[in-house]
Amino acid sequence: MPKSRPQDRNASLQRRIRERIDNKTKPLGALGELETLAETVCRIQRSTRPALHSPHLFLFAGDHGLANDGVAAYPPEVTAQMVQNFLAGGAAINVFARRNGLGLSIVNAGVATPLPDHPGLINAPVAAGTRSSLNGPAMTTAECEKAVDTGREVVAAYAQAGGNCAAFGEMGIGNTSAAALLLHRLGGIPLAACVGPGAGLDPEGVERKRRILERVAARHRDATHPTDALAAMGGFEIAMIVGGMLEAAARGLLILVDGFIVTTAMLVADRLDPSVRTHAVFAHDSAEPGHRHALECLGATPLLRLGMRLGEGTGAALALPLLHAAVDFMNDMASFDDAGVSKGERA
Amino acid sequence: MPKSRPQDRNASLQRRIRERIDNKTKPLGALGELETLAETVCRIQRSTRPALHSPHLFLFAGDHGLANDGVAAYPPEVTAQMVQNFLAGGAAINVFARRNGLGLSIVNAGVATPLPDHPGLINAPVAAGTRSSLNGPAMTTAECEKAVDTGREVVAAYAQAGGNCAAFGEMGIGNTSAAALLLHRLGGIPLAACVGPGAGLDPEGVERKRRILERVAARHRDATHPTDALAAMGGFEIAMIVGGMLEAAARGLLILVDGFIVTTAMLVADRLDPSVRTHAVFAHDSAEPGHRHALECLGATPLLRLGMRLGEGTGAALALPLLHAAVDFMNDMASFDDAGVSKGERA
Repeated sequence: MPKSRPQDRNASLQRRIRERIDNKTKPLGALGELETLAETVCRIQRSTRPALHSPHLFLFAGDHGLANDGVAAYPPEVTAQMVQNFLAGGAAINVFARRNGLGLSIVNAGVATPLPDHPGLINAPVAAGTRSSLNGPAMTTAECEKAVDTGREVVAAYAQAGGNCAAFGEMGIGNTSAAALLLHRLGGIPLAACVGPGAGLDPEGVERKRRILERVAARHRDATHPTDALAAMGGFEIAMIVGGMLEAAARGLLILVDGFIVTTAMLVADRLDPSVRTHAVFAHDSAEPGHRHALECLGATPLLRLGMRLGEGTGAALALPLLHAAVDFMNDMASFDDAGVSKGERA
Repeated sequence: MPKSRPQDRNASLQRRIRERIDNKTKPLGALGELETLAETVCRIQRSTRPALHSPHLFLFAGDHGLANDGVAAYPPEVTAQMVQNFLAGGAAINVFARRNGLGLSIVNAGVATPLPDHPGLINAPVAAGTRSSLNGPAMTTAECEKAVDTGREVVAAYAQAGGNCAAFGEMGIGNTSAAALLLHRLGGIPLAACVGPGAGLDPEGVERKRRILERVAARHRDATHPTDALAAMGGFEIAMIVGGMLEAAARGLLILVDGFIVTTAMLVADRLDPSVRTHAVFAHDSAEPGHRHALECLGATPLLRLGMRLGEGTGAALALPLLHAAVDFMNDMASFDDAGVSKGERA
């Protein structure tokens, strides 16, 4: 018997997923975006009976040389202080991850001060923070490659242990600046639309930030390849997330994308390998103004719209119950036949 | 010492809630609508340390005489069939309630066919379905009062057992018609804007439904008092939800409001006692077009916008994790002082 072609198998799977959803005891389409989400998870897992194994958030933290140049509302030392807060279990992401059964690992991607070993910490800094992109590339090509490789390794170990749902979060004073620059360069969005208050700049501060970032963008105008842009204007935590997403997609994992910075990392990964995006579920629509543009560049519709702008992966943690609900209804909800329920008028 | 006045105590509580939120280790306002939600829960519970005790969904099911008159996409027997599906654990609400730790009780408010006893069923029908409001009042005043009282009793028993978070859901073929009529009458919204496809009418069916409901509204034009409108054009499940909400508010419970029908029940309750609304959290924004208007009448902003239109309390079940997250961050998240994190630029 001749083998079926991949596109036929995909069409057949897509049809079986849709049939399974439409035979559940509910009006056609009545679960709205949750049905779309179920279709996405099934498509990623190539199954009509999806499953989430040990959903886990990798929270990458790194410092930014640019944070010393007047772009951020908080002093740079807050990156390390917040890592200590994560390790002590007191930050928003700890609270939400605990509540929703999301595993959590903190990764030191390149915090400026040394961090002591801790069971919850993957201590793999590339360097003690990036250099300021105002004066030259934030990282060398070798540093950028090392960061991407480390992100890959972290996710590879998770996948080897049986995990299939990797969420990404970040911490790094100054990283909305790095994300704005990458979105501007790789998404072709005017810089002014990519720049926002971050952790809380006032309008004057946002304007100062924009002027500084215009200078950075001009200095690195030749860094148009995704990897070059990432090295010139990115951050260690962003580069590790890019690597983690590339690895997750290569291994068929589901990627749960958080807010502005993580979505921008997805944009970098998408420009390197367009298949990565097909593994993504977008958690929420951040209040940071650039996020909307990053989502549009990727044709993404996020699950939650709560006006949050905290980072850390908090949007991903809050979206996880919806992902579970989509998976559960595919597996556990009765069909019309199972339940002996009459169907309504159907087209 | 003189006692403080209630409005001073409220202002003081409001200030302490806001201070507690603003001292958590996050930028000011960075949790967006989750901060508003935390404030709401704290205000309802008059505490800066809120708690959810045994969150529970009461799913009231009832049949509608009007469902035999061409207003619904599904045959009336589906109400009883779906109740059996709820009791067997196979419906969407079962799946979501299980996942999110939401207790679930099914209440037979007035299903057309007798239902056998079952441990998950509160079997308290007022009658075997309402009469068609096309020919007269859907219920007598006595029937309506009995339904409201039963709803009160169900919630009173829950509160006495220590529960403090009551969610409401419904099942009843034809009940988007009853809700549309009540929204039109009590919210002053043109009927055409209140009428939608319900479980899946095509545009022609919606137009037929609208014409029938115009006749019902005209017939009961004098039923302007909320109780009269409820008896003339409502349903047993809607009247029980109204009673349940009145009781929940009187006992200081949090009320988690589901979609179009439950929000319309909240509108009826609000018109009877405006303090009820201050106990409400609105779960989601349904795709049924009238829901937006019902929410506007109540000045409500729902948590989720997923384009769902299933009823049963499914929106409430999916919103519960956000409620838990809001409560948890108030209790478990570190303050700047606790965690030794530097504050940023603050106004």
